[in-house]
Amino acid sequence: MSRQTFDLLILGSSSASPTSERNPSAQLLNIAERYFLIDCGEATQIQLRKYKARFQSIDHIFISHLHGDHFFGLPGLLSSMHLLGRKREIVIHCPKELKGIMDAINSVSDTTLNFPVIWQFTDNNGFNLIFEDQKVEVYSFPLRHRIYCTGFLFKEKPLPRNINKFKLEQLNISTADILNLKKGLDVVNENGELIKNADVTLDPPETRSFAYCSDTIFDPTICEYVKEVDLLYHESTFLDDQIARAKKTFHTTAKQAAEIATRANVKKLLLGHFSVRYTDLNDFITEAKPIFNNCDLAIDGKKIEI
Amino acid sequence: MSRQTFDLLILGSSSASPTSERNPSAQLLNIAERYFLIDCGEATQIQLRKYKARFQSIDHIFISHLHGDHFFGLPGLLSSMHLLGRKREIVIHCPKELKGIMDAINSVSDTTLNFPVIWQFTDNNGFNLIFEDQKVEVYSFPLRHRIYCTGFLFKEKPLPRNINKFKLEQLNISTADILNLKKGLDVVNENGELIKNADVTLDPPETRSFAYCSDTIFDPTICEYVKEVDLLYHESTFLDDQIARAKKTFHTTAKQAAEIATRANVKKLLLGHFSVRYTDLNDFITEAKPIFNNCDLAIDGKKIEI
Repeated sequence: MSRQTFDLLILGSSSASPTSERNPSAQLLNIAERYFLIDCGEATQIQLRKYKARFQSIDHIFISHLHGDHFFGLPGLLSSMHLLGRKREIVIHCPKELKGIMDAINSVSDTTLNFPVIWQFTDNNGFNLIFEDQKVEVYSFPLRHRIYCTGFLFKEKPLPRNINKFKLEQLNISTADILNLKKGLDVVNENGELIKNADVTLDPPETRSFAYCSDTIFDPTICEYVKEVDLLYHESTFLDDQIARAKKTFHTTAKQAAEIATRANVKKLLLGHFSVRYTDLNDFITEAKPIFNNCDLAIDGKKIEI
Repeated sequence: MSRQTFDLLILGSSSASPTSERNPSAQLLNIAERYFLIDCGEATQIQLRKYKARFQSIDHIFISHLHGDHFFGLPGLLSSMHLLGRKREIVIHCPKELKGIMDAINSVSDTTLNFPVIWQFTDNNGFNLIFEDQKVEVYSFPLRHRIYCTGFLFKEKPLPRNINKFKLEQLNISTADILNLKKGLDVVNENGELIKNADVTLDPPETRSFAYCSDTIFDPTICEYVKEVDLLYHESTFLDDQIARAKKTFHTTAKQAAEIATRANVKKLLLGHFSVRYTDLNDFITEAKPIFNNCDLAIDGKKIEI
């Protein structure tokens, strides 16, 4: 049995301004066919089309903060969803000031969206469960930036135990008890025999997780929130030669991002939010690898299986 | 002597939503090295980069109306101008409600632009001179759309008369009188001889003009504003099979746009603002040509010499 989907599509990897190769921040996360859009820089809808992502499948949008390179694509995306016939509600998790801006834009254009927008305002005080369903849970946590900003943690919920179907066929077990076996319970079969869970089930795959941290100054206090995630996206706007500038602008260098990945003991680090001053992104890997080996670059259009 | 520049770069030609080939409305007009940006749909700054236009040279932006496909690129463009070091003022000619939206966006992102923005609110009551300098004048005029909307007319000012330098060398004319000759006056040279203007000057090239009409229902009253322009950009969101839909949504078909071009006796018609439903744009030419022969398509990246 193949595992449920858990992959990340990079839609934009530039900081502040786009370049000819890099759009502003946006990522599309697919966990078990739940589509989560994380940040929505200008032209995100164009990137979604370019990379053939079905943008009407997005039901949740997460906006980390209200610098333009993280949300200027939202009005256009919602407008296109509306014009292309969307009726299903969308949930936007964001700083509370965003609603007023979207209301003002809809007001001047005399637009009433044909679908409900559910506003869920983030709270950057502590670690908060902001969404859950049967398969996924999402948390927000504070990031230290020039303005209010949150990171997001996406986690699979524990999967049911895998049943050894070959063994199951030989035993006489009711459908209800198959569900109990999947939950990890022992059962008694229809012949009155005790069936030990360990004899007929296998451990499920471990749950996976992804954390998104953009934008932030170097801040080891976030390690507790992103501890041991399978993939950590951490901004690295600068290389370490710009460490003073990184500190001043509340951003991070590749070396510092690698330091966070090490301290948080994550499995893999994804670097992004690159300043327009850099053209050769391999320098980011060169700088991060000596500190944290398993690192990769967020490149527009790249898909990463988690 | 080569004529002063008068060309138009198409940055976006889609209506409402972008497609994989067409961005929302934006055009960059260059008259004698004055750069005028006309409308600013999402990702206009990305298009400007893609087509290697120097976007810091833009000193005037004209926004026809506040449907998102005509202004969602403005916050990002101004932000990039700011981040990339602009100090020179920019003038934005637009409906008055736009300022409040831009102020709100700058407020939530805690941004103060490093350059002055001069807001010049349009008035869609009549034909109004909204900008002029030594070489150019710009007018606004009302368009009939679902919301407040204006068109724009850009005109060269009359050029000085061309002096026949060969003849001039044989006569004894002061520098001051050379300027008088360029203005069309007769002069008396330093030998006391009357120099008739017609003997030493040639007519200057005729002044050129460009009119921008998007978005509008079919409305022959605009013909008086765009009469005899060299290039008329007129929206043609639909083909004539969607004439009822065009009327209902206050848009125009290719056939109707050609009818306007004929009635206004313009030299050339440029069709654009195409609905996402159309993939083969040649159908627009096929429909318009029998009514107005000299027509062309606004295609992203196309440059048109006027």
